[in-house]
Amino acid sequence: MNLEKIKNPEFIKQLNIEELNDLAQDIRQFLIENISKTGGHFSSNLGIVELTMALHYVFESPNDKFIFDVGHQSYVHKILTGRAHEFKNLRQFNGLSGFQKRKESIHDQWEAGHSSTAISAGIGMAVARDLNHDNGEVICIVGDGAIMSGESFEALNYLGSISSKVIVILNDNDMSISRNVGGLSNFLSDMRISTQYNNAKNNYVTFLNKSSLGKKIYKITKNMKDHIKKNVMDDTIFSQFGLDYIGPVNGHDFRDLINAFSLAHDMKHSVVIHVHTIKGKGYEMAENDKHGLYHGVAPFDYRKGIIQSESSSWSSIIASHIEKRMKFDKDIVVITPAMISGSSLNQIFEHYPERSFDVGITEEHAMTFAAGLSNAHKKPYITIYSSFIQRAYDQINHDIARMNLPCLIGIDRSGLVGADGDTHHGVFDISFLSAIPHLIIMTPKDALEAKKMINTAFLHFNAPYVLRFPKGETCNQECSFNETLEIGTWEKIIYNPENQLTIITYDQKVNQVFQLIQEHHLEINLINARFIKPLDKDMLNELYYTHQNIIVYETDMLIGSLGSQIAHYYSRLHMYMNIDYFGIDDHYTPQGEIKKLLEIESISLNHLLKLIKEKLDEKRKS
Amino acid sequence: MNLEKIKNPEFIKQLNIEELNDLAQDIRQFLIENISKTGGHFSSNLGIVELTMALHYVFESPNDKFIFDVGHQSYVHKILTGRAHEFKNLRQFNGLSGFQKRKESIHDQWEAGHSSTAISAGIGMAVARDLNHDNGEVICIVGDGAIMSGESFEALNYLGSISSKVIVILNDNDMSISRNVGGLSNFLSDMRISTQYNNAKNNYVTFLNKSSLGKKIYKITKNMKDHIKKNVMDDTIFSQFGLDYIGPVNGHDFRDLINAFSLAHDMKHSVVIHVHTIKGKGYEMAENDKHGLYHGVAPFDYRKGIIQSESSSWSSIIASHIEKRMKFDKDIVVITPAMISGSSLNQIFEHYPERSFDVGITEEHAMTFAAGLSNAHKKPYITIYSSFIQRAYDQINHDIARMNLPCLIGIDRSGLVGADGDTHHGVFDISFLSAIPHLIIMTPKDALEAKKMINTAFLHFNAPYVLRFPKGETCNQECSFNETLEIGTWEKIIYNPENQLTIITYDQKVNQVFQLIQEHHLEINLINARFIKPLDKDMLNELYYTHQNIIVYETDMLIGSLGSQIAHYYSRLHMYMNIDYFGIDDHYTPQGEIKKLLEIESISLNHLLKLIKEKLDEKRKS
Repeated sequence: MNLEKIKNPEFIKQLNIEELNDLAQDIRQFLIENISKTGGHFSSNLGIVELTMALHYVFESPNDKFIFDVGHQSYVHKILTGRAHEFKNLRQFNGLSGFQKRKESIHDQWEAGHSSTAISAGIGMAVARDLNHDNGEVICIVGDGAIMSGESFEALNYLGSISSKVIVILNDNDMSISRNVGGLSNFLSDMRISTQYNNAKNNYVTFLNKSSLGKKIYKITKNMKDHIKKNVMDDTIFSQFGLDYIGPVNGHDFRDLINAFSLAHDMKHSVVIHVHTIKGKGYEMAENDKHGLYHGVAPFDYRKGIIQSESSSWSSIIASHIEKRMKFDKDIVVITPAMISGSSLNQIFEHYPERSFDVGITEEHAMTFAAGLSNAHKKPYITIYSSFIQRAYDQINHDIARMNLPCLIGIDRSGLVGADGDTHHGVFDISFLSAIPHLIIMTPKDALEAKKMINTAFLHFNAPYVLRFPKGETCNQECSFNETLEIGTWEKIIYNPENQLTIITYDQKVNQVFQLIQEHHLEINLINARFIKPLDKDMLNELYYTHQNIIVYETDMLIGSLGSQIAHYYSRLHMYMNIDYFGIDDHYTPQGEIKKLLEIESISLNHLLKLIKEKLDEKRKS
Repeated sequence: MNLEKIKNPEFIKQLNIEELNDLAQDIRQFLIENISKTGGHFSSNLGIVELTMALHYVFESPNDKFIFDVGHQSYVHKILTGRAHEFKNLRQFNGLSGFQKRKESIHDQWEAGHSSTAISAGIGMAVARDLNHDNGEVICIVGDGAIMSGESFEALNYLGSISSKVIVILNDNDMSISRNVGGLSNFLSDMRISTQYNNAKNNYVTFLNKSSLGKKIYKITKNMKDHIKKNVMDDTIFSQFGLDYIGPVNGHDFRDLINAFSLAHDMKHSVVIHVHTIKGKGYEMAENDKHGLYHGVAPFDYRKGIIQSESSSWSSIIASHIEKRMKFDKDIVVITPAMISGSSLNQIFEHYPERSFDVGITEEHAMTFAAGLSNAHKKPYITIYSSFIQRAYDQINHDIARMNLPCLIGIDRSGLVGADGDTHHGVFDISFLSAIPHLIIMTPKDALEAKKMINTAFLHFNAPYVLRFPKGETCNQECSFNETLEIGTWEKIIYNPENQLTIITYDQKVNQVFQLIQEHHLEINLINARFIKPLDKDMLNELYYTHQNIIVYETDMLIGSLGSQIAHYYSRLHMYMNIDYFGIDDHYTPQGEIKKLLEIESISLNHLLKLIKEKLDEKRKS
């Protein structure tokens, strides 16, 4: 069918099983064609086609509320709620979001982007419903990776102790982003292969199917379920939490899904439905992908599949230098929270399996685990995306920095990230890390400097070092192991004391501004503030004594920025300086190409150039 | 025996059961007499006397490493490791810490103060041990409240998937700080009352007791344990995580404890030992305390018990105003992470049980749960201590502020807190919250202003409001429900444009500085910066146009402070102001009386007075 004609999900309730299967086929084809054009979350949405359709078949959105954990797997939901025609602008500026967004549709009733918030949010909405004596189910759809994260556990445990009902759909594809870890993961695997239980369960579902006694069935089925639980299988973790359990359900079988969801609908108490799906279902290369290559994709030709190029991403260049150091420094260990592929750690994990740790989506545990390793004199490199490291603020402060435990924290995807939007922009870390004592915060301008910083961290190894690097590619450069930097020193890229305007910037912006200066033959200075912490006080003093006007060019949050720290530094010493600032002025930045976002935030290179010219004109006139 | 003569824990291994019981008696008496004099964590340490002694009896510290989760229950450990004579200075400046501290003893090998980090840290230390082919057990002692927090779950799940061995002692007293919540808590209760299992287990322990075959016993006992597990009791949550389980063990019976610990010592895999203890054991009023009154105590007469006075703490005054609003505003709901008593919410929980939610030690879940309630148009008041809210940074940013979900977040114990020291000082929140868009951050100078702020938040209810208040007492004041404040407006306490020096400060420091000004007849201005965010730009502009010199008087972290934001504000507008700043200069502040801490940080009122006089002298001379 023409998916773009769908206005709302009502029609789906009229379809029979065969028609549902045909529609699933159409949706899958639509997803493959569209996501391969625009980029987006590929495998997770292909895996959840039947599951999402069955949800809309059994429940009544928006009175029943669907909360997709993270929200990256809500594409089918978007199609069924009348948004197929917007997929051509998926993840673009002013286009359809890759996540649930309340402003997009009345069927999107929660927003996320970070994992493991759905159950807590769902409990809040269910408790509110019950306080208001309203009706409507709250259904949280959570992946097996996300359910093993701390906040999900907290929420499941709490849910088991209250009377408000929430339905939790565990979308279990045995993968979070890359493969799952943890004892519970093994338990889920056991569940999947437990044929004995599967058979018992199938009989039980068939039994239900044949009955139409509605609510009266509940007592029998409940007992029967208890009977099955007690006798055929061990208790599940969910019953330990005081929750009912249905599963495993075949996530690509409409009959199975609809039966399970209908049963859950009629139950009085919170229940976990364990659905087994195949990530990437319907696209062979994605089905066989064990490394998360098809999890989130850039545009590719779906007839050929993703062609992996020799990557020179920041992540991979940094990972490769770490790996080289691991060869001769046996104490270096590497930790990632479920981001082996995203952080380009595949080779390290392959070559040094005993010193590589994927801890799953557990940023808190990851950071304290690193602290424990450091406390026992290992040298942890732990790498997390900037926006996800927000989860580990307390562990960085209370565990690592307070005890001054040496380690290297890689903050990947710092700065604006583009298509993933407001939940993923890594623009807060400077503001929340700078006030933490003992941290040394480094922002390399290029690959060579990144490697020198890694060397610096591991050679001194006397404090927690933070290496902040952006998404995307950069030029690789050779660097030996003994090239280091002096802590807290900035670099004069262009410096003539006669020039009276100085740009201070950091990371890849240094070279961008350098090019701008060259192109426009500007007679100004350029400083690479490669340490956000500690500040280079000698340099700041020199700028004062040579009567420089300063522009601090940043593209992260303005409050708490490097610029604000520079302002504070001068003000504390009663040095009166003429300074202009760039940064995001106290609001959330939407999705879109980074270039576009810099324009709308008035922090592009064009804006910088304009200000430079104004300042030079002023000077000339005065 | 004279506990002050203990040098190290070796001697304990020579004692027989009777002598152990006598020593336990002595330690208990010592704890009661000493903690009631100095204040400190009372009930938790009384509950863990036999458990700690049995640990030192079976294991060899420091080769075997004890990690006490949070660390507030390590007093017995401190006594046994030669620190009894220092208890007279417990929690005082330069005195014994109330937590484990590495610099105090080789037997303290980890530090905390926040809950639920022990297992992650222990895993790190165990993995390092195995990489180094070292030996020694890692033993994490975790309370039943702390084990239900997200990070503990993450760590347990991870531990089940790796081969490195960690022994987890679950110290289960059916109380975290106040009573426990959560499905798992019910499960633990079930475990405690399962006589069938207890009997089986007792026989099993007796059997072990009679044997002296050492390691050979292991195989038999392991099988027997499996047999018991499978047949007598349901699986535990720990076996779902892939961990072995021993328990429940009577935490006040040396024979039972020693047998269980010895068994765990000989096991090859990670194991959870479930020990049942009585919080406050040996002091009747603490044993019967259901509200956490004896959890952390101020000095009291142990012969009489704690006499509760009519409290006029900040917490209680604020809670009582919230309660009054709840009476006519049915949408207000109250959430606490296990701090009913600490946050003075007892009456609210009693009077509005259906709108009061204690979610356990789960700051992350607590905050997203509040977000869910707000998203469903409830009006959540969620109150958390400043240093613990660090755990919920991401939830405040990503869930609440990003969606601009209205709520009132109470930040209790903000600023320096005194005796609990570096892990508990609430001095970071301004630095990490200020950069988050949409937040309105309020700091009341007194009870009346706090109430006006609460009114303001609930009357507008269009954004997330943050109400930041300190530990300790203040004068209560009446306030009607319609008295509000204009958002982002500061208050002129003393203002004469002829004065050319202005102090900007906030919270209870406003009245302290006011008194200072009166006492010393200072001709200066005083501004109450009652909104940290948004800044009062009109006021700042006025100060500029009336040529004021400014002193920003703060006692939190200097980086990211209100002062730094004021510096940035003026600098952005190229307004050159003479400003001086007070704050903690980029390090962690130790424990001690707040007055003492302000002195050593050079941020006391005396330091302020000194600077004021210098500035006034300068003016006079110029």
